[in-house]
Amino acid sequence: MTRPIDLNADLGEGFGRWVLGDDLTLLSLVTSANVACGFHAGDPSVMRRTCLAAVERGVRVGAHVSYPDLAGFGRRFIDMQPDELTDAVLYQLGALDGIARASGTRVTYVKPHGALYNAIVDHEQQAAAVVAAVGLYDSMLPVVGLAGSAAQRAANHRGVRFVVEGFADRGYTSDRQLLARTMPGALLTEPATVARQAVQLLSWGVESICVHGDTPNAAASAAAVRAALVKIGATLQPFAS
Amino acid sequence: MTRPIDLNADLGEGFGRWVLGDDLTLLSLVTSANVACGFHAGDPSVMRRTCLAAVERGVRVGAHVSYPDLAGFGRRFIDMQPDELTDAVLYQLGALDGIARASGTRVTYVKPHGALYNAIVDHEQQAAAVVAAVGLYDSMLPVVGLAGSAAQRAANHRGVRFVVEGFADRGYTSDRQLLARTMPGALLTEPATVARQAVQLLSWGVESICVHGDTPNAAASAAAVRAALVKIGATLQPFAS
Amino acid sequence: MTRPIDLNADLGEGFGRWVLGDDLTLLSLVTSANVACGFHAGDPSVMRRTCLAAVERGVRVGAHVSYPDLAGFGRRFIDMQPDELTDAVLYQLGALDGIARASGTRVTYVKPHGALYNAIVDHEQQAAAVVAAVGLYDSMLPVVGLAGSAAQRAANHRGVRFVVEGFADRGYTSDRQLLARTMPGALLTEPATVARQAVQLLSWGVESICVHGDTPNAAASAAAVRAALVKIGATLQPFAS
Amino acid sequence: MTRPIDLNADLGEGFGRWVLGDDLTLLSLVTSANVACGFHAGDPSVMRRTCLAAVERGVRVGAHVSYPDLAGFGRRFIDMQPDELTDAVLYQLGALDGIARASGTRVTYVKPHGALYNAIVDHEQQAAAVVAAVGLYDSMLPVVGLAGSAAQRAANHRGVRFVVEGFADRGYTSDRQLLARTMPGALLTEPATVARQAVQLLSWGVESICVHGDTPNAAASAAAVRAALVKIGATLQPFAS
Repeated sequence: MTRPIDLNADLGEGFGRWVLGDDLTLLSLVTSANVACGFHAGDPSVMRRTCLAAVERGVRVGAHVSYPDLAGFGRRFIDMQPDELTDAVLYQLGALDGIARASGTRVTYVKPHGALYNAIVDHEQQAAAVVAAVGLYDSMLPVVGLAGSAAQRAANHRGVRFVVEGFADRGYTSDRQLLARTMPGALLTEPATVARQAVQLLSWGVESICVHGDTPNAAASAAAVRAALVKIGATLQPFAS
Repeated sequence: MTRPIDLNADLGEGFGRWVLGDDLTLLSLVTSANVACGFHAGDPSVMRRTCLAAVERGVRVGAHVSYPDLAGFGRRFIDMQPDELTDAVLYQLGALDGIARASGTRVTYVKPHGALYNAIVDHEQQAAAVVAAVGLYDSMLPVVGLAGSAAQRAANHRGVRFVVEGFADRGYTSDRQLLARTMPGALLTEPATVARQAVQLLSWGVESICVHGDTPNAAASAAAVRAALVKIGATLQPFAS
Repeated sequence: MTRPIDLNADLGEGFGRWVLGDDLTLLSLVTSANVACGFHAGDPSVMRRTCLAAVERGVRVGAHVSYPDLAGFGRRFIDMQPDELTDAVLYQLGALDGIARASGTRVTYVKPHGALYNAIVDHEQQAAAVVAAVGLYDSMLPVVGLAGSAAQRAANHRGVRFVVEGFADRGYTSDRQLLARTMPGALLTEPATVARQAVQLLSWGVESICVHGDTPNAAASAAAVRAALVKIGATLQPFAS
Repeated sequence: MTRPIDLNADLGEGFGRWVLGDDLTLLSLVTSANVACGFHAGDPSVMRRTCLAAVERGVRVGAHVSYPDLAGFGRRFIDMQPDELTDAVLYQLGALDGIARASGTRVTYVKPHGALYNAIVDHEQQAAAVVAAVGLYDSMLPVVGLAGSAAQRAANHRGVRFVVEGFADRGYTSDRQLLARTMPGALLTEPATVARQAVQLLSWGVESICVHGDTPNAAASAAAVRAALVKIGATLQPFAS
């Protein structure tokens, strides 16, 4: 009996003249591409090229929505009002969906990026605001995030599907919480360790596993994760949406 | 026998703290709202409020796409490459359509703004790039612009519907070309004169008449245009899209 | 015996096509102009016109520095790292000083704007970061802010002069703390009340009194403040810098 | 008898999370650093780090001013009005000078970047606007550009010093004009060829030689240029300013 599992990675994080990450390698390994929508990275032409490359490789596209913060790469909390945040998410979601549509696909999920991702673990109002945007746009669109987060509660409350993901390259505590980045073992860089972590996440029931593209050994780690999951009989495929 | 005619105006041209124009008055007079998409004006929340107000008054929404130029209000030519421009139009079109969708409507046409509008009167490559974006997004979506423009030729070439508009508050030469802004009579500010001009545009066969919101007597002029058109038996209604 | 007092107001808060506030009226009433530096408002040309208008009326110029947040008008807290914030303040301070220099004057003080102003009442690291920027730029340049704030402590610690200001149009508690905006009496709009408040602030020893330009009755209130201060023998003049 | 010659390179062209070029290697080879000012690249923290690195290596700093165009990396012509352009140059010049000042140095020259550099070869009004900004800021500050350009004429007219530069990695016609980029031999990538070109530029009397940081073999070429110039007895030193 096989178990389906999704692999997602952040892609399209260049901007104008600036290149970031090895998108083509990652696209050959993952099943879901979190595509930046212009607020933390990704100008319209980067978004277009990323969607076309994803389509070519049969990888589906999700909206990697962010606070408006190019200079900070979306990694700084911004105390946006809930309505503003809902509108900002709608804007990014629509923009990427428009570009996806012109590239032969559509946006099939939403994953918040960086500081917004972290904020909606606890910030109930911002979590509700993000979920509200998704619900207004298309209530069938799933939101990807952390188990036990405010985002998950907001999604359940509103009837928006929530997909729990885990991080293959992050250490967890024995009660399945992310280790703080300052703790020893918080960041896993050895491909074999990352692969073991992915197998463990699968056993915990996550629906999607995130591999990062800009960490040391990123491509090697993603390949190791993929191989380890296949080896134990998991089927790599996009989560339902 | 009545003749259908559309009235369009530029709306949603505030940004953040800044307000511009009297949107609510114009929405009570026009049949089509050209809504700014964030590149020359219109942050996501302004866009949302504008769409909601348009829906409430039964006015349909079009994408008022622009060069990326907030500081210049989209009034400065930017020598964008055709591909960049196509992608930028797709981005704006998708963003507004996403917000429109969340507001109970959809984008039903595209009208370029400011320097982009003027550029694609003559600039064949940029005209083709704008039309290409619309064709990629939804080939049924009409583009609004000037008769005899490169944009019209590009639309005809690609099979995208082109809607010819005229300006009620601008003077024309005897061969129906816009008078240069520096010529006497180029800008009409007297409501009665503006209304007469609108009636003449109707007789020329334009499908839509543009009234501006930020000129002197703007609301009075728009009301006069509407009254004059109704008086001669025209039916104010959105052009087909 | 007369008492010197400074009146300051926020100016140059337009951006591109957008106009905000009645700068010329306020320039005829105040002694110090807090000029926006492009991060919450004020493009380079607005900054230039504001500096030239201030010079013409003999009003000196201060840098109204902000988080980078045009869409939010600088009113949203951004969790910037201290180094980033120091650099962002240096950038704005230098930019305005360059424009001031080309306009026949120089920046003579720094006043944080909006959410940054509020943050550095309590946020020790951001307060130290703002003060560090000023100290690096010109250690003789004063910083304007709230009595008892983290900013004041940071300035004292670093040997940067701190100028205590009060708000003529805000209510205070009996122990001289600002009333929260949600409390009755927090916002004063009656010119006579605002003027009485200004007289009280003078008796408390503030060196500068802020009058706002975008509240109801703003110009009337500023004029009333000025008249009331003159009447009790105060001399309106810039604080020393 | 030795001949003084300046070597300049574009530096600080990262932005936020994005890195570009090998600044530290180039800083060990050149005498003048053209530092991006935030309009085409270079956020305040990148600018600060670049200034500090230049100071540490004894390299002086110039303002690499640009059209406002992060997404286009300043490589797209923008039809700015002369006044707007003057103000935009002043803003950037002041911003970088503020950051330079906090880093223990000052801006000692101005070099336009990208499309602005190319525009002011022929565009008399934009050339005059750039020179006007420099003259207003500090009439002793030289402007770096192309021999025979509108910028040179504008500088001569206004009494601003103009420094003629040549490009070590570009081919020239027999009458010392740049070969169009589409011509064979327009781009030199072989370090030995680049070095020979530099020696020839010296014989033509240019005061500064530009080496690029983002072309193939960039660092090797810059090192070869430096060695070739030293070998023929030239003294590498900043041009007078």
